[in-house]
Amino acid sequence: MTDSDKKPMSRLLKLANKFNCFYLSGECRAFVVDGQQVGLVRPDVMKELLNYPQVFQVHPEYVQLNPAFRDYAERSARVEEVLREWRAGGKFITLRGWREECYEVRAQFNTPPLFKMDRSATCLFGIRKYGVDINGYVMDPVKGLSIWLQKRSPNKQTWPGYWDNMVSGGLSVGYGINETAIKEAGEEASIPNNLIAKLKSAGCVSLFFESERGLFPNTEFVYDLELPPDFVPSNNDGEVETFELLPVNECLERILSSHFKTTSVPVALDFLIRHGYITAENEPNFIEIVELLHIPLQTIYNHPQKKCKIAANGEAIESLDRI
Amino acid sequence: MTDSDKKPMSRLLKLANKFNCFYLSGECRAFVVDGQQVGLVRPDVMKELLNYPQVFQVHPEYVQLNPAFRDYAERSARVEEVLREWRAGGKFITLRGWREECYEVRAQFNTPPLFKMDRSATCLFGIRKYGVDINGYVMDPVKGLSIWLQKRSPNKQTWPGYWDNMVSGGLSVGYGINETAIKEAGEEASIPNNLIAKLKSAGCVSLFFESERGLFPNTEFVYDLELPPDFVPSNNDGEVETFELLPVNECLERILSSHFKTTSVPVALDFLIRHGYITAENEPNFIEIVELLHIPLQTIYNHPQKKCKIAANGEAIESLDRI
Repeated sequence: MTDSDKKPMSRLLKLANKFNCFYLSGECRAFVVDGQQVGLVRPDVMKELLNYPQVFQVHPEYVQLNPAFRDYAERSARVEEVLREWRAGGKFITLRGWREECYEVRAQFNTPPLFKMDRSATCLFGIRKYGVDINGYVMDPVKGLSIWLQKRSPNKQTWPGYWDNMVSGGLSVGYGINETAIKEAGEEASIPNNLIAKLKSAGCVSLFFESERGLFPNTEFVYDLELPPDFVPSNNDGEVETFELLPVNECLERILSSHFKTTSVPVALDFLIRHGYITAENEPNFIEIVELLHIPLQTIYNHPQKKCKIAANGEAIESLDRI
Repeated sequence: MTDSDKKPMSRLLKLANKFNCFYLSGECRAFVVDGQQVGLVRPDVMKELLNYPQVFQVHPEYVQLNPAFRDYAERSARVEEVLREWRAGGKFITLRGWREECYEVRAQFNTPPLFKMDRSATCLFGIRKYGVDINGYVMDPVKGLSIWLQKRSPNKQTWPGYWDNMVSGGLSVGYGINETAIKEAGEEASIPNNLIAKLKSAGCVSLFFESERGLFPNTEFVYDLELPPDFVPSNNDGEVETFELLPVNECLERILSSHFKTTSVPVALDFLIRHGYITAENEPNFIEIVELLHIPLQTIYNHPQKKCKIAANGEAIESLDRI
């Protein structure tokens, strides 16, 4: 935060602004399935969808999965056909990371899944994703608050070799939220049962990140875990290269560096804010940053259920009940 | 949260939805001063502004304070004239609570004030307000996490007799954020120096509340203060009727009741979320609630600096650089 006096926008706000979906580049359209918005489609993807009118119906304001598809299985199969064709044709770099592991596609976290899609393709359709993150920290008697970070394995399909929060993982089909956190803590960092018992739910962050791969509207359920100073995490599943314990000021520099996984930044900043390290007194853009860590995805993903909205400038946006 | 299984919307979400400004009743217009949006004006206020074309210029998409007014002093004086006329004429119930105490009107928290306005009138123009809140809590060896609430004096001009967080107060001209928190802790709850030393910054909440009085786009800087079990707060300035220490489950019921000051709800819920009492496992609408406690006021109050936005449904909103 040393630059904050010289620049109109602090380093932290600059970083947090990467999640400011209100200024998305280009024109995205809502992706609607069974009358509910489940995603957002960029122009580059839209162009390809036009080649599959039996599967995707492109309207001026939204893209719809063919409503004639009857159920979860039919929708999943018809979309997968298209995706496999794209992958075979070398379209979209994200599909090179095809996982053979699916995410459920839902309108909201607590509504039934409408179909499933390979993990690597969800960013092409701006599908909301959910994960867990554990902030592992130590109250060091000498160095004060210190935070465990992991360096991701160079073999990971996404963000290889980048620094990340101590433990994180996506929510897979069939696993609960706490359950996923506890499972990942064991696999990624070998946290024993007596220590994981202190795991504390601490909220969630909602972020919207755009890269050349696609759109990442993610919600991360956030946990804090205080660890004893003599405990050292060790990896169990080959997904982590190393762990490092950093005093809080060094940790912030690491987060601000280009070596930290961008989509993990909100969880890390939220931790430093909740624990009183980043404050309204030392960060000039404190309010904007806190707001940007909780982007209202529920509002962005609500086409076309709501009839009329007030735009950011106070204007009423026209009724959207055209479907 | 006992009703959450029976109802599509949990009690907590119902409460948090009171801050969902994306569905404001009626059509509000941006209030612009010196080229920057500082507020939002509802139709009932707009109607009255039409009578003062020398002061307020009503355009189809925004209302502008006459740009011929040269500076802070002239703007403040010209607006005050109108407000005093309204007050004398018995217009707008909020003006019955005229305070002779002004808030600064700014485009952002960290930008220079453009003019000042009596506290009671700011809700007529949807001016952003800033305050501090202290969550006072005790780790009771028997009852567990317990929270101090205050009952507001029946003589207060706003929310008399309602339950509220232990300590809160608006940011007045000339006081810093921490400074205000410490000052209010002394005045409202007689917290001694040795205890206030443990005050911990814990983030902020942004809320947007609408009532018959007007619009309340508030940001509250949030502090936590752990207190010893034997300490009892006592009031120093006549603004508090009583304090009560409630175990966390009773505290949540009090927050959900109609006796709790609505605009203080976000701070209280944020506390219960950060401390692991309200979680993604016990609250079905957890994500929506956390998002609603951090409404992006920076986005709602950005007319007309940004050229193009993406609406909630993915549509591009037209360029706004018409001023």
